Amino acid sequence: MMPSSLPVVRLKPKANARAIRHGFPWIYDNELVTDRRTKGLTPGALAVLEDGERRMMGVVATNPNSRIFCRMLDRDPEAVIDQGWFETKFARALAMRARLYETPYYRLIHAEADGLPGVVVDRFGEVAVVQPNAAWAETLLEPLVAALVAVTGVSCVIKNGSGRARALEGLDEDSAVLVGEAPDAPVPVVMNGATYMADLTGGQKTGLFFDQRPNHGFAAQLCNGARVLDVFSHVGGFSLAALAGGAKQALAVDGSAAALELAEAGAAAAGVAERFATRRGDAFDVLTALGEEGAEFDVVICDPPAFAPSKSALEKGLRAYERVARLAASLVAGGGYLGLCSCSHAADLARFRGASVRGIGRAGRQAQLIHTGFAGPDHPLMPQLAESGYLKSLFFRL
Amino acid sequence: MMPSSLPVVRLKPKANARAIRHGFPWIYDNELVTDRRTKGLTPGALAVLEDGERRMMGVVATNPNSRIFCRMLDRDPEAVIDQGWFETKFARALAMRARLYETPYYRLIHAEADGLPGVVVDRFGEVAVVQPNAAWAETLLEPLVAALVAVTGVSCVIKNGSGRARALEGLDEDSAVLVGEAPDAPVPVVMNGATYMADLTGGQKTGLFFDQRPNHGFAAQLCNGARVLDVFSHVGGFSLAALAGGAKQALAVDGSAAALELAEAGAAAAGVAERFATRRGDAFDVLTALGEEGAEFDVVICDPPAFAPSKSALEKGLRAYERVARLAASLVAGGGYLGLCSCSHAADLARFRGASVRGIGRAGRQAQLIHTGFAGPDHPLMPQLAESGYLKSLFFRL
Repeated sequence: MMPSSLPVVRLKPKANARAIRHGFPWIYDNELVTDRRTKGLTPGALAVLEDGERRMMGVVATNPNSRIFCRMLDRDPEAVIDQGWFETKFARALAMRARLYETPYYRLIHAEADGLPGVVVDRFGEVAVVQPNAAWAETLLEPLVAALVAVTGVSCVIKNGSGRARALEGLDEDSAVLVGEAPDAPVPVVMNGATYMADLTGGQKTGLFFDQRPNHGFAAQLCNGARVLDVFSHVGGFSLAALAGGAKQALAVDGSAAALELAEAGAAAAGVAERFATRRGDAFDVLTALGEEGAEFDVVICDPPAFAPSKSALEKGLRAYERVARLAASLVAGGGYLGLCSCSHAADLARFRGASVRGIGRAGRQAQLIHTGFAGPDHPLMPQLAESGYLKSLFFRL
Repeated sequence: MMPSSLPVVRLKPKANARAIRHGFPWIYDNELVTDRRTKGLTPGALAVLEDGERRMMGVVATNPNSRIFCRMLDRDPEAVIDQGWFETKFARALAMRARLYETPYYRLIHAEADGLPGVVVDRFGEVAVVQPNAAWAETLLEPLVAALVAVTGVSCVIKNGSGRARALEGLDEDSAVLVGEAPDAPVPVVMNGATYMADLTGGQKTGLFFDQRPNHGFAAQLCNGARVLDVFSHVGGFSLAALAGGAKQALAVDGSAAALELAEAGAAAAGVAERFATRRGDAFDVLTALGEEGAEFDVVICDPPAFAPSKSALEKGLRAYERVARLAASLVAGGGYLGLCSCSHAADLARFRGASVRGIGRAGRQAQLIHTGFAGPDHPLMPQLAESGYLKSLFFRL
């Protein structure tokens, strides 16, 4: 093999080279021999990783500003990270989605698990929204986007440069239309028979989250003829699916007027507006108020933002999940159903389930657990990072 | 309240009365004050449970021959366990299944989680198969069956008295037709578009397992146009669903000629026999032989029996799961899919996933984890026993 022209970064003799060889994709700063040259690497620069015995392990993307100093890009140390390399990744990711989804609305690239560390691409038909949340992807955005267009044939590519992950990489907020023309109105997206409106330029992150799709589908099965409450509804994820599943009525509660407006537009587009209502306000306040009003629902679903985004916030977050469970359980009719979701990395399945069950108990209710769901298959996981499967969705019968 | 006429069993002062009050359904023999009278209780006898301070906690079923000495039946100490009591339980269980399933083929009672500890009832249309796997249910079988018929209207009730659980309760093997006439041929059951043949009198346990239904459904989505291998196929769970999902061909491997015959009958009934083949033999031998023959499949699914049925068998069981994963991964075409299942209580999700990933790695393959599934909602869990959710189903893309 020809020696690579890339700079070299080297593992300390004590670093866990075995875990990396077995597929762990990250190398932390304290595992590397860092000299002046290494520290001087431009964020996003590619390098060849060597183990303590100077054996080449692959091509990595580096970022001296991040605790994750290296992200494995290719285990072939001679790999060339160009448009063709990106095309291979996109083609592979597309093949799985095309098999599973009838229409091209899905997460196309889910970062590490799809071979593009730190990169997220969501597809809305002819439009793709790219989140280059790692420095290397910002540097190589041009061949990345060219490959995306070549493989998928999308006519518009939007860069979404907001979000917390970029700050950890030292990247600025920066959003732009990179290819074509951005749609000037929210895009309708059909999932589980419901219509959602995705605001691709003004929305939160990519405007619509695909990850809850199978859990929306499960909830819809429970909702025929039911009175449904959807708390932290965003653009109506659970409530619009419930109406598609035959719910008698659905009430969506959220703090964002913009989200509720999109939810109402989705209900109108699906012709279910007369069974749909919204209530804007703090979710805890509205849950409390509904309890005081003596409101009762056959199905209540709560899909809050991450209450425990980090380990340090875990205890506080679990208390918040318990409180949501308690308030929501009180509103469920006898024999009814309660769906509780968490998108907190730090709260694992057992902890989140524990907090949920405590809250249900504090409401004086007993429960069966009938379903445990995660994000859909367009959000694959690296098995080595599977513990971090962030999205958990529990359905109880009370 | 009138004092109950039932005998009394009492918790030791140090026993965890709080856990029981919070819903834990079992009291172990070492948590009870056991005197001659308690030890002399007939297996299956009902009693009132008291805490260390002689406060009544509920009606329990006792069995001095079992480590689980008491099973909580009703938290009302005055409850009368008669036909009406059973009818309430069945009606509640039926309401959930009727909501979720279009046709009456499902597990109707899943033991503790459906309020009938140790009792399993599977429903195949007009036929119900009861497994009274705890002594109390054997004693009260008459009102139980009368309630089952009254609530569901089934015309035939079969008692399946085989299975390991009964031995732990000191119960004999004893199967019989309790109501009506048993079908004299296997019953066709449609799930996920496939037809399965359930042999309700001669089969393993209840002849057909409903628990994998959602995982069969997920697998079917992956199988359009695919070459599919279904190892430990039993009556064709995954392979027949795969064919319904459009698989080009499916091969079912099992050690049981009877199971494969039923699988073939199912394929014939669904009109997919020409795309279906079976191979009888030890699964490890067949996997090895297929490897030597250079066989290749787009989707391989392995659903073995419990390799780790108890804690003492855990290490050995995990090695067996790893071996299955290694052999199966070698047969998957590039970009293909591998489904690995475990029905071992002792191997929790993280351990089973670890063994699976090690096996895939030993086959020299890298994987994305695209789906984690459990048993369907007709197999609810008590949240307090949720760790024991026995069925795990992992789908990888290689």
